[in-house]
Amino acid sequence: MGKNKIFYGACVYPELWSDEVMVEDYDHMQRLGMNLARLGEFAWSTFEPTPDNFDFTVLERSLELTKERGIDVIVCTPTPTPPIWLTHNHPERLHVDEHNTRMSHGSRQHICTNNPYFRERAYIIADKMMEVVKKYDHVVAIQLDNEFKCHVGQCFCENCKGLWHEWLENKYQTVDLLNDAWGTDIWSQRYNAFDQVVQPLATPFIHNSALLLNYKRFQHEKLAEFVKEQVAVIKKHHDIPITHNTGVFFDIDNEMIGNEIDFMSFDTYTPVEHYENFVMNQETWRYVKNDNRQVMLLETSTSYNGHVQNYGILHDQGYVEAEAFTTFAAGTSAFSYWLFRGQRSGCEQPHGSVVSSWGDKTIGYDSVLKVSDLFKKLKPLISQTELDEPKVAITYSDRARSFIDNENGGVYQYKALMNAFHKLFLDLNIHRKLVPEGHDLSQVDVLFSPYMHNLSKDYVARAMDMVKAGGTWFVGPMTSDRTSEHLWHTDNGLGELGELLGIESAVQFYSQEGQTTGEAFGITSDLKGLNTFVDIDTDYVKGKVTSETAKDKTFIVEKKIGKGTLVYLGAHVSDELMKELITHYAGAHTINNVLETSDEVVVFNRTEETSGKLQYWLVNLSKEEKTIQLHQPLMDKLNDQIRQAGSYTLKAYDYLVLAHD
Amino acid sequence: MGKNKIFYGACVYPELWSDEVMVEDYDHMQRLGMNLARLGEFAWSTFEPTPDNFDFTVLERSLELTKERGIDVIVCTPTPTPPIWLTHNHPERLHVDEHNTRMSHGSRQHICTNNPYFRERAYIIADKMMEVVKKYDHVVAIQLDNEFKCHVGQCFCENCKGLWHEWLENKYQTVDLLNDAWGTDIWSQRYNAFDQVVQPLATPFIHNSALLLNYKRFQHEKLAEFVKEQVAVIKKHHDIPITHNTGVFFDIDNEMIGNEIDFMSFDTYTPVEHYENFVMNQETWRYVKNDNRQVMLLETSTSYNGHVQNYGILHDQGYVEAEAFTTFAAGTSAFSYWLFRGQRSGCEQPHGSVVSSWGDKTIGYDSVLKVSDLFKKLKPLISQTELDEPKVAITYSDRARSFIDNENGGVYQYKALMNAFHKLFLDLNIHRKLVPEGHDLSQVDVLFSPYMHNLSKDYVARAMDMVKAGGTWFVGPMTSDRTSEHLWHTDNGLGELGELLGIESAVQFYSQEGQTTGEAFGITSDLKGLNTFVDIDTDYVKGKVTSETAKDKTFIVEKKIGKGTLVYLGAHVSDELMKELITHYAGAHTINNVLETSDEVVVFNRTEETSGKLQYWLVNLSKEEKTIQLHQPLMDKLNDQIRQAGSYTLKAYDYLVLAHD
Amino acid sequence: MGKNKIFYGACVYPELWSDEVMVEDYDHMQRLGMNLARLGEFAWSTFEPTPDNFDFTVLERSLELTKERGIDVIVCTPTPTPPIWLTHNHPERLHVDEHNTRMSHGSRQHICTNNPYFRERAYIIADKMMEVVKKYDHVVAIQLDNEFKCHVGQCFCENCKGLWHEWLENKYQTVDLLNDAWGTDIWSQRYNAFDQVVQPLATPFIHNSALLLNYKRFQHEKLAEFVKEQVAVIKKHHDIPITHNTGVFFDIDNEMIGNEIDFMSFDTYTPVEHYENFVMNQETWRYVKNDNRQVMLLETSTSYNGHVQNYGILHDQGYVEAEAFTTFAAGTSAFSYWLFRGQRSGCEQPHGSVVSSWGDKTIGYDSVLKVSDLFKKLKPLISQTELDEPKVAITYSDRARSFIDNENGGVYQYKALMNAFHKLFLDLNIHRKLVPEGHDLSQVDVLFSPYMHNLSKDYVARAMDMVKAGGTWFVGPMTSDRTSEHLWHTDNGLGELGELLGIESAVQFYSQEGQTTGEAFGITSDLKGLNTFVDIDTDYVKGKVTSETAKDKTFIVEKKIGKGTLVYLGAHVSDELMKELITHYAGAHTINNVLETSDEVVVFNRTEETSGKLQYWLVNLSKEEKTIQLHQPLMDKLNDQIRQAGSYTLKAYDYLVLAHD
Repeated sequence: MGKNKIFYGACVYPELWSDEVMVEDYDHMQRLGMNLARLGEFAWSTFEPTPDNFDFTVLERSLELTKERGIDVIVCTPTPTPPIWLTHNHPERLHVDEHNTRMSHGSRQHICTNNPYFRERAYIIADKMMEVVKKYDHVVAIQLDNEFKCHVGQCFCENCKGLWHEWLENKYQTVDLLNDAWGTDIWSQRYNAFDQVVQPLATPFIHNSALLLNYKRFQHEKLAEFVKEQVAVIKKHHDIPITHNTGVFFDIDNEMIGNEIDFMSFDTYTPVEHYENFVMNQETWRYVKNDNRQVMLLETSTSYNGHVQNYGILHDQGYVEAEAFTTFAAGTSAFSYWLFRGQRSGCEQPHGSVVSSWGDKTIGYDSVLKVSDLFKKLKPLISQTELDEPKVAITYSDRARSFIDNENGGVYQYKALMNAFHKLFLDLNIHRKLVPEGHDLSQVDVLFSPYMHNLSKDYVARAMDMVKAGGTWFVGPMTSDRTSEHLWHTDNGLGELGELLGIESAVQFYSQEGQTTGEAFGITSDLKGLNTFVDIDTDYVKGKVTSETAKDKTFIVEKKIGKGTLVYLGAHVSDELMKELITHYAGAHTINNVLETSDEVVVFNRTEETSGKLQYWLVNLSKEEKTIQLHQPLMDKLNDQIRQAGSYTLKAYDYLVLAHD
Repeated sequence: MGKNKIFYGACVYPELWSDEVMVEDYDHMQRLGMNLARLGEFAWSTFEPTPDNFDFTVLERSLELTKERGIDVIVCTPTPTPPIWLTHNHPERLHVDEHNTRMSHGSRQHICTNNPYFRERAYIIADKMMEVVKKYDHVVAIQLDNEFKCHVGQCFCENCKGLWHEWLENKYQTVDLLNDAWGTDIWSQRYNAFDQVVQPLATPFIHNSALLLNYKRFQHEKLAEFVKEQVAVIKKHHDIPITHNTGVFFDIDNEMIGNEIDFMSFDTYTPVEHYENFVMNQETWRYVKNDNRQVMLLETSTSYNGHVQNYGILHDQGYVEAEAFTTFAAGTSAFSYWLFRGQRSGCEQPHGSVVSSWGDKTIGYDSVLKVSDLFKKLKPLISQTELDEPKVAITYSDRARSFIDNENGGVYQYKALMNAFHKLFLDLNIHRKLVPEGHDLSQVDVLFSPYMHNLSKDYVARAMDMVKAGGTWFVGPMTSDRTSEHLWHTDNGLGELGELLGIESAVQFYSQEGQTTGEAFGITSDLKGLNTFVDIDTDYVKGKVTSETAKDKTFIVEKKIGKGTLVYLGAHVSDELMKELITHYAGAHTINNVLETSDEVVVFNRTEETSGKLQYWLVNLSKEEKTIQLHQPLMDKLNDQIRQAGSYTLKAYDYLVLAHD
Repeated sequence: MGKNKIFYGACVYPELWSDEVMVEDYDHMQRLGMNLARLGEFAWSTFEPTPDNFDFTVLERSLELTKERGIDVIVCTPTPTPPIWLTHNHPERLHVDEHNTRMSHGSRQHICTNNPYFRERAYIIADKMMEVVKKYDHVVAIQLDNEFKCHVGQCFCENCKGLWHEWLENKYQTVDLLNDAWGTDIWSQRYNAFDQVVQPLATPFIHNSALLLNYKRFQHEKLAEFVKEQVAVIKKHHDIPITHNTGVFFDIDNEMIGNEIDFMSFDTYTPVEHYENFVMNQETWRYVKNDNRQVMLLETSTSYNGHVQNYGILHDQGYVEAEAFTTFAAGTSAFSYWLFRGQRSGCEQPHGSVVSSWGDKTIGYDSVLKVSDLFKKLKPLISQTELDEPKVAITYSDRARSFIDNENGGVYQYKALMNAFHKLFLDLNIHRKLVPEGHDLSQVDVLFSPYMHNLSKDYVARAMDMVKAGGTWFVGPMTSDRTSEHLWHTDNGLGELGELLGIESAVQFYSQEGQTTGEAFGITSDLKGLNTFVDIDTDYVKGKVTSETAKDKTFIVEKKIGKGTLVYLGAHVSDELMKELITHYAGAHTINNVLETSDEVVVFNRTEETSGKLQYWLVNLSKEEKTIQLHQPLMDKLNDQIRQAGSYTLKAYDYLVLAHD
């Protein structure tokens, strides 16, 4: 997996088909110019039909066939689908959900990933597979498992109960410290011993928020532990980079998992109606690994997704091509379909593929051919450029998500909040990056921290270092109003941030539409949502409430600290005001002086490696024709011709690569 | 139950009332001209209050009272409501639903009908009852149980688990054959022994579709086995015909059950808003028993249905009379109310009846009187005619339903699809019959096979025999695209049908509204739904896609085979095009040359036995006045006067019997 | 708690805060003019962290601090939140809900209140607390527990099963009497022994309505028994009045509980959109205790309610003040916030309070200050007047509710029906009281009995005594149509009432909108709902059906009996007709001759103790300005000035006290 190498491919299931069919399919992939196959993630019962009875014939054969055809391979460990011998007569190994319902064999993820016997067998199968894999140098990556916790969340089995008590003891040392941290005197929740602490199963009303937060954290850490242990087994054999195909909706902490593996990959089936989610998805994973910035898109559909209980929606013609362009423009190094040949059995028969179960071209086949052409054209352009490193960062964090999962107030969902926030940066053509909490801020000029109910001490320290060095830290909305255990602060309404800002008082409440109004930067905005208003020295006030409710309270604070600026936004503001704020604090990072786009036309900045000049990779992710404005002549790299300054139209799903001449 | 005898009556519950009340009610029934009482289906605890302690006093008394009054009786076995002694302290005998919830005593159908002790006791009570019943020659039928599986579906108890494994072993012989048939290599589902095969209880995502299909089939077969065994017990005593009051929504395979009993009966509470469902209901059961074509309507309401959690909607005045007319016109030999005297206890207190718990006339009483009059008038007309045997058949099948239950795609429901399909035949006045898969096709000219994901080999063979002999077989939409185990075909997209048609390729996907358009027979139609498009020799093409999506693919194929025609419709088409197709292929079977009706006026063709002439029994099943056109003079049999050719209006719920003079 | 003393205060949680914080808060309460603190209801684990290890330091300290500051106290027993030692390793003590789901520690009400060990420990902690409490004479009341059954309903644990059988045996003596009373011959439900009677857990369809009704009654009685036993423990120590903070939605029988305690209290969080519910709430509890008429409002919010899964809606400015005025005007003697200092942990962090967890003023603080002022102003006015005793009574009954819970028909909810019914009295300015079934009717002139499916013999006897003495008893709609076991009557459709009226026949059914129409008192009304129509001697007919459906049946009957009048309304009528009926039968009890108000302006009549003159306490509970008309000059007591006859406007949430000069 050399630098700037890009991949185009599909997932294959050699365990499901005859050798003849697999030869036909690999030949077909080669003809399509594909250079990547992903395989193995569900094949445990083929590789080990009964305990310790290993058979990797199918794996080796596929590795041979792909090698002969110049197709690189990602080999996956098959741990999401344990064979029947792992759970038959062993209900205690099965996953138990939040309703105390025990899962059964027959689908995926039905086992508790914390079960010691499962882990033992998972490491053995991984170990055995790697003995095969290390013989092939065209295996470009190992994928762990498949979409961790895409179907299930936290497990409530008896084994987890014991681990939970252990985990708590490790974290708190004494149960009194736990009681203090969680505020368990409320409702007589107090525990006298760790082994009394409940798993948050059914109870008449809502559990303590600290209990819920910790149980989730416990489960996230245990999964990261499983990852770490499996990585250790694999690394004994070779140095092939290890990845995982994650997703934004899964009940995991991606940063924790990223810390254990070599690079992040992801799956996405976003329809054009949510193009901004598709783009954010491209940008969510790149900096989880601060060092290598490698990301692969490992699953997307040629046409539609779906299963027997949901017939998916067929993409518009052109959309898949636009997705592929976006993927490579965004610095993602692979674009891979799920799946090559349609599933004949199971429950995903009605899912788009390259060819059908009976080998005919599917409705998505034309798109596949077009992406083949595009892939050939982009390869050289990609190899000569690199995604420009943005100086504007937005923290995206599953830890922040867990607070909002806990306290949604009946209205909030972290992913939706972040999508809407991020879209404003797209609309403004601000060159941005999404970063995890642990991101190295030394290269960041402006950091946004929205929707983070709690700021860890470490995060604050690093952000303040950035501020002192001249950066801008924009905090809010809905940030720093809870402790790390999801309690209220008791010193002031905003904890450490409150001290940094020097607030005199704070008040928080949820405003309905029209209940509270504020003004800032000459813009009047309704302030609908869970807002925190403060009293503070008027020198620092940048936005004040104008409505009778909360009259004259402050909702925007700006304070110079060291060489930089700390900005606090306490309220949810209108898009108009939020765009003004982004422009005010991060406007230097736009490309609007060179070119301007309509909404739904997304731009990625890439730098030519030799000249150091910027390129603008544009894609129209809408069903409509859109207009763009060039303020200076630019070179159209896909057609090798100069485009003079002026107005151009971009057809639906069309794209452009523009370069400074 | 002589030939052409028709019945009018009600269900009675002598076990719930004093002797005085029952005498009053039977007298009342007699005064109303009723000649049918149904009784016994919930009276087990009265007949056998403790094990082996039998008391049939109430049954015998009712049989005496009815006999004296000339009221024929249907006696039901009381197996839907096992007494408390069958389940007290025996939770293992109780029905367990798909959420693994165990039922309790106190309602109906709370026991597992596969439990061996339950079956033993069911046969004993049936046996003992028949000793009483056989002494009365006015018992015209035995009803088994009541509305099998109207409240519950498949059972997941431990006993069923063992039976499931037995059933699988019988079906597949070796577990490898099962694995191959089900494609269990997917997701490592593979089983190494039959006793490992799970019951499809909770799992993180969807179970294998073959597993789901087979578990349903297993349960359906076990219920048919219960029927067969109970029938054998009863037949030892007498030859009274055995029936069951079924319904379209119950989780059973009616064809399987029909094979074990003498004739089908059904219950219906359809409101006028779904008059087409009421009519289809009349036509669903007649040919399940190919030999005798006897059907009874055993439950309908005098006014409204309902229970304590749902107050039903009161029928319009006139609707019940129109229902009764439709029932007899359609060849159904009984029209019977549920129930005569309102329930004083239980949960169905708010359900319409003939008289209330306290003996007063209910709001439905006027309707009852009107149907009494109608019944008197129709008796001679019915006795002189017989429902004309249609030559156009539509296959209606619970086996087909089980595939769509399994794969609804989030959009499909078999019953709704069939109702809409059947309604087009009503609208076009095509004389049609609904037939089971096993129907003898020798008397069929045109066979429609819609919504049958899988066609069995036997069905195809018989249909092709019909084609070769000169018939037309119209296949589709959504037919033959899955194997008998609910997998994709791998030879071609349509399996055996694909071979018969000689298709070159096939592609299937779900089209949203507006995504795909086609043209056939001069009509342009949106093709919304799960469609299969094929490539085939242009000689056979009758309809092609015109939209960019799937451009030029074929969706209607017509092929002459032997003396007949095989037609394949791959797509869901507009009503306009579907009506054109029906008219094209089955238009010879309409009566529109004699008379034409508006929608909602339904016509049944009956033949005078002596003259062999056709009669047209018309009923306006709408709230509005409707117009009909006579193209020639016809005799109005209810008024004994000639109606000249011309236009007539039919008031809401009015009806006519027209005969060739 | 002297006569006419009124209270203003808040709930406090000294077990959650440091001594410093509590001193600060009690000082603050004193400054705010508050004279009431409620505490202790969730503090069990603080008072008894391990079994028999008692520590009342926090309680004593708070009692000292409040005493010093002149703040009276309500001390609550902490039984809603048993410490972990009560349930750890003892799942059999936990509450089991109707889905057979066992609760867990960590929230509230997770234990079965019928568990003998729980009860033993509950009485011990209550006993120990009272030893402390009795030393303080500023403890003005003891509150039992907190909002009994606000989160859970009936319990289905194994222990309850045994108690259920015992309870049934006590009630019915023999199982045959139970079978007869419940009509269990239906569906072979018949029981041969009490220990066979099921708890109404999952069953395929609906349980017997008598079973459901009795299980609910059993649970309600057991809870009343818990109350009675706890009261006995407390009363051994002192005579401090005992109360409970109830609510209209809880699964309890408030009249039963009222019989065991000294006075009723209630909690309410009603928003202005349902101001009529807020007012009805004020009037629901006063006469539950016929003797003392003491009521306290113990919980309402300063601003909004809510929890982590629901951000509440912020009240309009002025609404809390209007609530406080309404509360005191309605004769309720306390207005107390939940809570003083916001919860830092648990799940109710986002709930309005007086000060936040960090001690800042909340968004509700201004309202708190305004109510402080109002409280000072009202104190003397309240002390000189008393709520006038209405002569018009409406029966409000949890027993009646239980019938409608059982048989909602998919459309009815008792509370909503009663709110709509009661609102008509508000709109008409009829001076009314809500009374329990057991209310002493000797002071009542007109009694309304709506929505009481069953009238007990005792109730009928007392109502008929009132009628004979000259009163008017207005019965219906939806009253007396079921037996006390929720069966139909079998003698006539209305049982004892039917006999009293002398009806000839009755028919009941549910009319959809537009299906049935009637006329009475010159008004034509649609009769939508579950109606009973009767045939009766025309002398008694006051309203007849005019539609084809049920043509000429009677829906209003009026019969003179003794010196009074018995009126029966069988149908749900329009508001217009219902207002006419109320005016006709209770119009003498309005104040419209003195003054008239718009809807949403609510009036309470209070009598000056010295002069015996009437005062009118008016409050505008709407968001809009409203108009009122004085027909004569009246003294404005809050401004000490005469208001001449004429029209006045009342701003949103404004209020007035008007007195005869």
